[in-house]
This record gives sequence, C-alpha cells and structure tokens, in this order.
Amino acid sequence: MSAGRDIDALIEMLAKLPGLGPRSARRAVLQLVRKRELLLMPLADLMHEVAVNVRECTRCGNISEGPVCPICLDQKRANGELCVVEDVADLWAMERSGNFKGRYHVLGGTLSALDAVGPEELRIPDLVQRVEDEGVTEVILALNATIDGQTTAHYIADQLEGTVRLTSLAQGVPIGGELDYLDDGTITAALRARKEL
Amino acid sequence: MSAGRDIDALIEMLAKLPGLGPRSARRAVLQLVRKRELLLMPLADLMHEVAVNVRECTRCGNISEGPVCPICLDQKRANGELCVVEDVADLWAMERSGNFKGRYHVLGGTLSALDAVGPEELRIPDLVQRVEDEGVTEVILALNATIDGQTTAHYIADQLEGTVRLTSLAQGVPIGGELDYLDDGTITAALRARKEL
Ligand SMILES: [Zn+2]
Ligand SMILES: [Zn+2]
Repeated sequence: MSAGRDIDALIEMLAKLPGLGPRSARRAVLQLVRKRELLLMPLADLMHEVAVNVRECTRCGNISEGPVCPICLDQKRANGELCVVEDVADLWAMERSGNFKGRYHVLGGTLSALDAVGPEELRIPDLVQRVEDEGVTEVILALNATIDGQTTAHYIADQLEGTVRLTSLAQGVPIGGELDYLDDGTITAALRARKEL
Repeated sequence: MSAGRDIDALIEMLAKLPGLGPRSARRAVLQLVRKRELLLMPLADLMHEVAVNVRECTRCGNISEGPVCPICLDQKRANGELCVVEDVADLWAMERSGNFKGRYHVLGGTLSALDAVGPEELRIPDLVQRVEDEGVTEVILALNATIDGQTTAHYIADQLEGTVRLTSLAQGVPIGGELDYLDDGTITAALRARKEL
C-alpha cells in the first residue's frame, strides 16, 4: 500500500477474519488509527490478554479464561443435563437462547469419513466418561441438522444407549440448518420440543 | 456471553469495526482463539506496533510509521503534481489505481456549514503553503462528487487561482460517487481525462 510495512501487514491480517475482506480491513485500520486511544490500544491489550489467558475448558471444551469455564464452575448448572454441541459457536448460540440451564460438551467437530475424523478426535471418549462420572441424567444432542452432524449424533447415541436419557433438538431446526444461524426463539422452541431418541 | 470477561469485551470491541457486526465478531474471536500463534498473537503485536508508531504524516496527512510518509519521502514523486483528497481512504484508492506519480495532500474532510467545518480544520492553509514552498505546478482536486466535496473544491480553487494549474478528476466519477468505492480502472480513466477548472 502506501503507508508502511506494519499497516500493510495489519490490513492483510485483518482481511483474513471472517466477515472482513480487504476493503473492510482497510476501513477498519483507518478507524483503528483514528481512534488510537479508544479502540486500537485497548484492542491490542485485550488480544494480548486473550492470547495469554484463553484456552479450552478441560471439562467441556468451551473456550475459557481459566482451566475450567464459568459454566462448568457454576454449581447451579449441575442439573444432570448435558448438551452436546459441535463447536463453541453452537454453545454460544444455545446460551444466547437463554433457556438451557445445564452444562455442555463441545465435540470440536463431527465425525467425517472424508476428513478422517474419528471419535478420538472429537472428545467422544471424554463424553462417555463424563456421563459416568458427573451424574448426568440426560444428554441432549444439539448437533447441526447436516449429514455429518446426524451421523455423529447416531454414533454417540449408540455409545450411550442404556446409560442415560438421550434426546435431541427437534422442532424448529430446519433441514441443513446450522444452530449458529438460528434466531433465539427457534432454538428455544427446539429445546422445549426435544424428543427421545 | 459465557466464556469470560476478556472474550466478551473483545467481541464487543471487534463488533464496532466497520464491516463487523456482533455475529461476525463472535466468529472472528473464535477463529482468533483457534489460531492463537498464527493469528491472535501476531495481530496483538502488530496492533501494538501500529498504535505506538503510526501517526499523521506532517507534510501530507497520510498515515505513516514515521513523521513523514513513504510517498513524501520518495524523491521520484516530486514531479510537481499534488493530488488533494478528502481522507486517507481516498489516497489509498488513488494509489491502488497505480497511475498517479505525484504527491498527495489529505484534507481530513470537507468544508461543511452544517458541521461547522471551516478551512482551518481541513489543512487548507497548509495546502496553500505547500503550493508556494514545494514547486507545485499542478493541483489535482480529487474530491468526492458530493455537494460538500464540490464546495470544498471550489473554495480551494479560489484560494489557489492564478498560482498553479488547477485540475479535477472528471470522466468516470459518477454523481454522488465516492472514490474509495470505485474500481481502479474508473479512477485511472478519470485521472487521464482530468480537466482544467
Ligand atoms: Zn467448561
Ligand atoms: Zn506524506
């Protein structure tokens, strides 16, 4: 570009973020530079903090500023319900819907023959262990309504059959739909109408 | 949200950037955390560098990693042509078009009675001074085709009349159009067909 090496590098790096292309990255950098004290400095500090402190919750796979995330630490959420989601974005979507009071288990993806993703890559063994250890009474499979999502749900149901009540989100999740794109009301409705597997 | 104070703050701050809303900010944070070493750490460092080092070029108003920007430092660009733009985004748009070989003067906005922006707020006195001091032979007014942009162009033309050749971008700039939204070819065509004021 024409302003210097660091600025060009910053534009290039921001343009890699989801939702930003080169043009919005340029606009973003100009705004950051214009609001150095109010936006750029705090953002740099915050990113540094997050880079140093944030990791995966060792229990559920949520991202967390300590070894165990706030949801796993919250004793009020030990109600025996465990909601299995594909990734952290889906966990956040469930939380935004505001109606689930239990805990989560983040798989970190779905089984996929094509991408050679097996159960070991997905925290499925951890899930089986948690159901044994944590007094779980119901596992809610909140996986996306995709082929891989449903294959994964069936595999997990097989693993847990007979040990626990198994349900899945039902009404309201459109075919092929992804949780993170749904409005809160739809998620709430799907949770209320969850059905036995 | 559900992951911690710093993460929530980071999402909130990123959502303020142009082009990002809350949803893409959440996605961005998840990607940043996933790519801690490759993306989050370097981005935090780069933002810190930029926050510390980047300022306005004291000559032209471009943003710059030193007191004077690379364009003003480049002796090959001292060809007597000075292109006046509203803001740095417009300077970058001109540079991307790749056909202007002179230097710039960034006004930092347009005259506006409504917003009480007068010539003193806009580096217009600096512009008159530069034309005197720097052997400028032609001032190209590359202001946006908006009412305020054209008002500002006329004001500057009045100030400089008789001291220098005055031109403006012409063919190709659509009515109400903003430079930063135009493709490079259009800008090049407008530059080639520039006309005397
Ligand atoms: Zn957790
Ligand atoms: Zn400069």
